[in-house]
Amino acid sequence: MNILCLSGSLRTASINSMLLRATARLAPGDINVSIFNGLGELPLFNPDLEVNLPASVATFHRAVAEADALLFASPEYAHGVTGTIKNALDWLVGFEPFASKFVAVLNCSPRAHHADDTLRETLRTMAAVIVESASISIPLLGAGLDESAMVGTPSVAGAICEALRALQDAVVSRRGSLTAEFPIR
Amino acid sequence: MNILCLSGSLRTASINSMLLRATARLAPGDINVSIFNGLGELPLFNPDLEVNLPASVATFHRAVAEADALLFASPEYAHGVTGTIKNALDWLVGFEPFASKFVAVLNCSPRAHHADDTLRETLRTMAAVIVESASISIPLLGAGLDESAMVGTPSVAGAICEALRALQDAVVSRRGSLTAEFPIR
Repeated sequence: MNILCLSGSLRTASINSMLLRATARLAPGDINVSIFNGLGELPLFNPDLEVNLPASVATFHRAVAEADALLFASPEYAHGVTGTIKNALDWLVGFEPFASKFVAVLNCSPRAHHADDTLRETLRTMAAVIVESASISIPLLGAGLDESAMVGTPSVAGAICEALRALQDAVVSRRGSLTAEFPIR
Repeated sequence: MNILCLSGSLRTASINSMLLRATARLAPGDINVSIFNGLGELPLFNPDLEVNLPASVATFHRAVAEADALLFASPEYAHGVTGTIKNALDWLVGFEPFASKFVAVLNCSPRAHHADDTLRETLRTMAAVIVESASISIPLLGAGLDESAMVGTPSVAGAICEALRALQDAVVSRRGSLTAEFPIR
């Protein structure tokens, strides 16, 4: 069970990136949570480049293809998604392994709904399956918690672990239904 | 009177970029319309880089500061703005000369409203002044017109010229009100 985390912020002290690193530390032994650190190296999307895919994009595609689920955490900039997260998604439009992928969207700043709404709209349009029970709001903005403090705060750590379990349940439940429909004999 | 055009697509055959180049060709003698071609060279926005601004961003800031108005044309990708145009805007958040700048948003694909709505929401949030009479829909998607055909098609050329005049009127009218309120004696 592989979960790939994507942060929409490139800032070193990003709360969203910290939340994802805390998530990786909190992951139970049967869930492998990794963070994709190459979003900042992706070129700005240009359909003309798709015929000869830049290496950074090919690496990103491979990581997405290998993941059972994707976990997003991204700030809101000027009532919109960040250019960084949208650019990453632009490179996944039409990338077949992304369609019907399970995804969850964490929101560190529950009062900011524009970026959250817009990101979900785009994900749905790209045929991802948003796991609502794993897409939780954790009011971290202004809470002054760093990564270790998140791990050490029971309410935060508990919410993160529940989100991971919900994502895992979605993946396992699909595997079950696929096996039931298409038994390997 | 300087209008700076920003295309949200990096594709060579982009209809939005063609529309902006057609606009530059159609501009009357008293309006200087230029196209900023460096959006693809901007790094993905990172607040940590703002202390020592990359040269490409400084060039972009300078072009924006020198413009009386900005004219946007940007496609919709997966029901969202393009990463390219949002990344450009992310670099303008908090850039003082952008606030209260006159802007207009052209839409080549009137049926696509998500990106148009979201782009306007972000522009308003950044305190730009959207000139509605210059923010027109021109149904070009699928029309098969290249840049020269746009210039040569009276309905398209007429709409473009009206948009330019509307932007000019907004700029001139503000200058008038500023002069009236703060006369230089």
